[in-house]
Amino acid sequence: MDLERLKTPCALVDLDRLEANARGMAARAEALGVRLRPHVKTHKCVEIAERQVAPSFRGVTVSTLAEAHAFADGGFTDLTWAFPLPPDRADEALDLARRVDALHLTVDHEASVDALERACRRRGAPASVLLEVDCGDRRAGVDPSTDRALRLATRIADADALAFRGLLTHGGHAYGARNRDEIAPVAAAERDVVVRLATRLREAGIDVPEVSVGSTPTMRVVDRLDGVTEIRPGNYVLFDAFQAAIGSCALEEVAISILATVVGAYPEQRKVIVNAGAIALSTDPGPTHVAPDCGFGVVATADGRTLHDDLRVFALSQEHGQIRGDGVTDRFRIGDRLRVLPNHACVAAAQHDRLFAVRDDAVVETWRPVRGW
Amino acid sequence: MDLERLKTPCALVDLDRLEANARGMAARAEALGVRLRPHVKTHKCVEIAERQVAPSFRGVTVSTLAEAHAFADGGFTDLTWAFPLPPDRADEALDLARRVDALHLTVDHEASVDALERACRRRGAPASVLLEVDCGDRRAGVDPSTDRALRLATRIADADALAFRGLLTHGGHAYGARNRDEIAPVAAAERDVVVRLATRLREAGIDVPEVSVGSTPTMRVVDRLDGVTEIRPGNYVLFDAFQAAIGSCALEEVAISILATVVGAYPEQRKVIVNAGAIALSTDPGPTHVAPDCGFGVVATADGRTLHDDLRVFALSQEHGQIRGDGVTDRFRIGDRLRVLPNHACVAAAQHDRLFAVRDDAVVETWRPVRGW
Repeated sequence: MDLERLKTPCALVDLDRLEANARGMAARAEALGVRLRPHVKTHKCVEIAERQVAPSFRGVTVSTLAEAHAFADGGFTDLTWAFPLPPDRADEALDLARRVDALHLTVDHEASVDALERACRRRGAPASVLLEVDCGDRRAGVDPSTDRALRLATRIADADALAFRGLLTHGGHAYGARNRDEIAPVAAAERDVVVRLATRLREAGIDVPEVSVGSTPTMRVVDRLDGVTEIRPGNYVLFDAFQAAIGSCALEEVAISILATVVGAYPEQRKVIVNAGAIALSTDPGPTHVAPDCGFGVVATADGRTLHDDLRVFALSQEHGQIRGDGVTDRFRIGDRLRVLPNHACVAAAQHDRLFAVRDDAVVETWRPVRGW
Repeated sequence: MDLERLKTPCALVDLDRLEANARGMAARAEALGVRLRPHVKTHKCVEIAERQVAPSFRGVTVSTLAEAHAFADGGFTDLTWAFPLPPDRADEALDLARRVDALHLTVDHEASVDALERACRRRGAPASVLLEVDCGDRRAGVDPSTDRALRLATRIADADALAFRGLLTHGGHAYGARNRDEIAPVAAAERDVVVRLATRLREAGIDVPEVSVGSTPTMRVVDRLDGVTEIRPGNYVLFDAFQAAIGSCALEEVAISILATVVGAYPEQRKVIVNAGAIALSTDPGPTHVAPDCGFGVVATADGRTLHDDLRVFALSQEHGQIRGDGVTDRFRIGDRLRVLPNHACVAAAQHDRLFAVRDDAVVETWRPVRGW
C-alpha cells in the first residue's frame, strides 16, 4: 500500500533503518563477546524481534507479563522479565514458565523472594531468578556494596524451589548524559559494578551463570564487556529524538516516526497545528538537559527524507500538536503531511495499535504491538 | 467481580462519583439555560456518555473520527467533531454524516473550507460547519476581532454545499489558572468573545444557530451563559489531579484512578516502586504552575477511600512508577496495592483497553474505550 493512503495520525517504521539498527547492535554484541537479548518493550512486536535475535538464541527481554505471553506464543523460548516481580502475578508467571525453555524473573527484595517461594509451593513449580543490582541508576536494584546483596543471592541460591540465575542491572542513568563522553563512565560502571558483585558471589561459593547489563546508550558506547554474559538494549532498533540528542545515534538512524496531517495554519503565530497530539506522540518531555527547548519531537517531511529540525513541536494537547518556527506556514500548508520523530520511541509506539513498516514509500508490513499488562 | 481479582496495573472508574459528576454538570447546564453536549474524548466510552446526556438530546462532542464512528454506532445521533478538519479525512466524515442526524465539522481557515467544499462535490453531500474562534487560548481558531472571522463565516454561509452551523470556542487557557478566581475571567471571556462575534455575524445577516463554548474549569465556574446555546465540557465526568489543583473539583470527586501493585521498597530512599509507569499513568506533567512538585498523580489506598497526598509520584519510566515520602515503606509494602489519581484523566484513560467501573469494591461493568483515530 502506498504511504499516502494511510490515515493519519499513524506510526511508521522505516524498515531499512530498523534492519540496519538491528544488524548494528548484533554486530556489536558479537564483537564484545556477549549474547544479545533485546528488550522488546520498545516495540512489543514479534516481527521486529525476529529481526533482532540470532537463530541460535531466541531470547528476549520483556517489561510486562502480557509481552511474555505474546512472545512465548510467537516462538521466543527464553524470556527475561526485567521488572521487579509483582507478587500478585507470580503464579501466572510460573504457569507461563512451563510453556517456554526459560522465564527468568527479577527480584531485589526479601519480600519478593518470600512471595515467589510461596507461589512456587502453590504451583508446585520452580523459578529461575535474577537479582537486580543498582549500578547507579537509583531506580530499582540492591546496593551491590552491601552485605544484603550477598545475603539475598545466598537466600535465592539456597532456596529449594528457586534457581539463582545471576545478576541483572540497567544503566538507566545514561539518559542523564549529554554526549558519548558522558555515557562512557556510566557504561563502565554498569559493567564493573555487576561484574565485581558476581566475583564476590562466586568467591562465596554461589554459581552465577548470567551477568546481564544493558541500555541503548551504554551499549552503543561501551568498549569492552569482560565478565558480562549478555546485553539487553531495546530502544536501539528504533532509536528516537532523545537518543540522537545524547549521541546514541544520528537523527538519520531514527526508524520510528508519527505521520500527521496539517490541520491549521497561523502565520501570525509562526505556527501550524497537526493532528498528532499527546496521544499519538506521547508527552515524554525529551532531552531537556541537552536542549531545553527540544519540544516533543523532531519534524521531518512526509517522506521522511528531509529534517526540519529548526521547527519546534512546542505544545501537545490530547489531539493537537502545535509546531512553531520561521516560515513554518510556507513550508507546510493545511492538508500537507509531515512526520514527527518522537522523543521516546518506546512510549510513542505503545500508543498505537498498529505500526506500519515502510520501505521505498510503500507500506510493506503491518504489525500489532502487544497491549496491556 | 471483586476488585482484588483485577490484574494490575488497570484503570478504575468510581461509578458513584462518575454518576454524581454527570448529574452535577447536567444540573449546571439546566440552571445556565444551555444544552449539554459532553466531550467524550475524556473516556471514549459509550456507556459513560449514556450517563451524561439527556434523553431529549443524544448529542456529544468527539475529538477523532474514530470516536465519531463508535458513538454513531452507539446511537448518538448528533455529533460535533471539535477538531480542525483534516482535509484527508473530509470524505470519510461526509460519509459518516449520512448515518446520523448531524455531524458538525470544525474549521478555522479558508484552506479547510476549500478542501471541505471539494469533498462535498466529490461525495455529492452537504456539510454542517462550525467556525472555531480563538477566545484567548491561542491554540486554534480565528481571531474574533478581525474582518477575517466575518469573511470566513460569510464564505461558509454562502457556499452551496455548506450549512453554517455557528461558532465554537474552547477556553483552554483556563488550565493556566491557579484557582477558581483566576478561572472566572477566562470563563467570562470564553462566553463574551463568542457571543459578541455571533452578534456581529447576525448584524451582517448571517444566521448563527449554535454558539458553543466549554471546558471543564470554565463550566464549573461560569456564572451566566446568556447568548450561548450549548456547552462542551468533558473532563468533569472523571476529573483528575490537575482539575483538583486548580479548584475545578475536590480530590474526593475524582472518579478515575490507576490501580497498581507495590513491587519494590527502598527505605533508605524513602521510596517504593509500583507497576504503573509512563504507559499506565501517562506522563502529563500536571499542575506544575500551582504545585511545582506535584509529580505524576495523587496516591490513595487500594480501596480509594484514603488519600496519601503527601507522597509524590516523582518519576515514571515505561513501567516503573517511583513514589517517595516519609514512611512510605511503612505505609505500603511489597505486594500491597494502591491507587494513583492521574494528572490528566483523558490521556490516562486512553492508555487502557478497558476501564473497570467499580461500586462498593466490586467491578460492576467493564468498558472498552475507542482506540485510534
